[in-house]
Amino acid sequence: MIPIISVVGKSGVGKTSFLEKLIPELKRRGYRVAVVKHDVHGFEVDVPGKDSWRLGRAGSDAVVIAGPSKLALIRGLEREMALGEIAAFLPDADIILTEGYKRGTAPKIEVSRRAVSTELLCTEEELVALVTDQPFPLDVPQFDPDDVAGVVDLLEERFLEGRQARVSVLVDGRPIPIEKSFVADVINRTVRGMVSALRGAGEGRRIVLMLDDWRG
Amino acid sequence: MIPIISVVGKSGVGKTSFLEKLIPELKRRGYRVAVVKHDVHGFEVDVPGKDSWRLGRAGSDAVVIAGPSKLALIRGLEREMALGEIAAFLPDADIILTEGYKRGTAPKIEVSRRAVSTELLCTEEELVALVTDQPFPLDVPQFDPDDVAGVVDLLEERFLEGRQARVSVLVDGRPIPIEKSFVADVINRTVRGMVSALRGAGEGRRIVLMLDDWRG
Repeated sequence: MIPIISVVGKSGVGKTSFLEKLIPELKRRGYRVAVVKHDVHGFEVDVPGKDSWRLGRAGSDAVVIAGPSKLALIRGLEREMALGEIAAFLPDADIILTEGYKRGTAPKIEVSRRAVSTELLCTEEELVALVTDQPFPLDVPQFDPDDVAGVVDLLEERFLEGRQARVSVLVDGRPIPIEKSFVADVINRTVRGMVSALRGAGEGRRIVLMLDDWRG
Repeated sequence: MIPIISVVGKSGVGKTSFLEKLIPELKRRGYRVAVVKHDVHGFEVDVPGKDSWRLGRAGSDAVVIAGPSKLALIRGLEREMALGEIAAFLPDADIILTEGYKRGTAPKIEVSRRAVSTELLCTEEELVALVTDQPFPLDVPQFDPDDVAGVVDLLEERFLEGRQARVSVLVDGRPIPIEKSFVADVINRTVRGMVSALRGAGEGRRIVLMLDDWRG
């Protein structure tokens, strides 16, 4: 799986500001970064001067606007998506950062600021790191809000270095955990073997395979 | 592959209006429909009152806003994406309709209106159907702009019925054509067999597998 890290914290502690510093540092080190912002209230998207949304209103399940240097996709959901499912839309990211998702299962960085609260949202077990201007008596690495290099060092060490081939499997949108690395290895080698036999496939870094049973 | 049909025509002939009638008819028959709008000039997306785009400006390669009933994804592109690549972002559609992409390789429905032009953009070979208020001396099914049921009957017959399991393979974002149906069948059965052995996988309708070689 692509590593997913949730940046959480109480309202007003500076999660977005911290992400605005974290993202350029990851980019500077060569990673492809995707950000997922959790919106709990619903939102409206508007593309000024476009009639694309007429197509959404006509009942289309998804609308894409594809330009020369940008792609926008808007789709309705029957239920809220879990982060593992959202990751399927971000297949070429090296790391996915989320703003919010404090109730999700991804490892978390909590941003804390004395002026807002002296308490934390997360338990020690949930946390990868704390970004804070006040020390907490927890066995968790703690960083000054300006020490983004330190946070990225930690993310590299914990999530980005020395990884094996990643294998992700979704069944009907549900991520299936692969607990043994030899199982991932068997799947990886078998599928790469089959795909490499296809004319024109060559040796790719990233293989995506989608199988659909057609409607009965 | 998910069938992709491009609705093309000269400016002002009523492509969007035709799609606004076509989409509900496909939905009424139970299909999941995605629409891709080709934008040649570039566009701006704005989510009023959101600071999500601060994260995009900070250099994030992709920004997702995930709400309870809607998901929006905006990503930058190094080069314009081909339709086959865009389809990877629409994995659960039964059919993808495009507005535009007249230079693409997808089969085409041309919308034509006498008041705009008496000439066509497409050649007979490119066309699945013509939607027009004027007859053309071509060996292509021709429909009145109000006969969306007739157009959908044709799409069902040509693209949506009696299909085998679909197998799509992308290598580094490039769709790999699978020319022989027995090859697709071998891949489908092999991968489904492996996945069904994973704890908790069960028998899914749709399997997505992503394999990544981690940066060397």
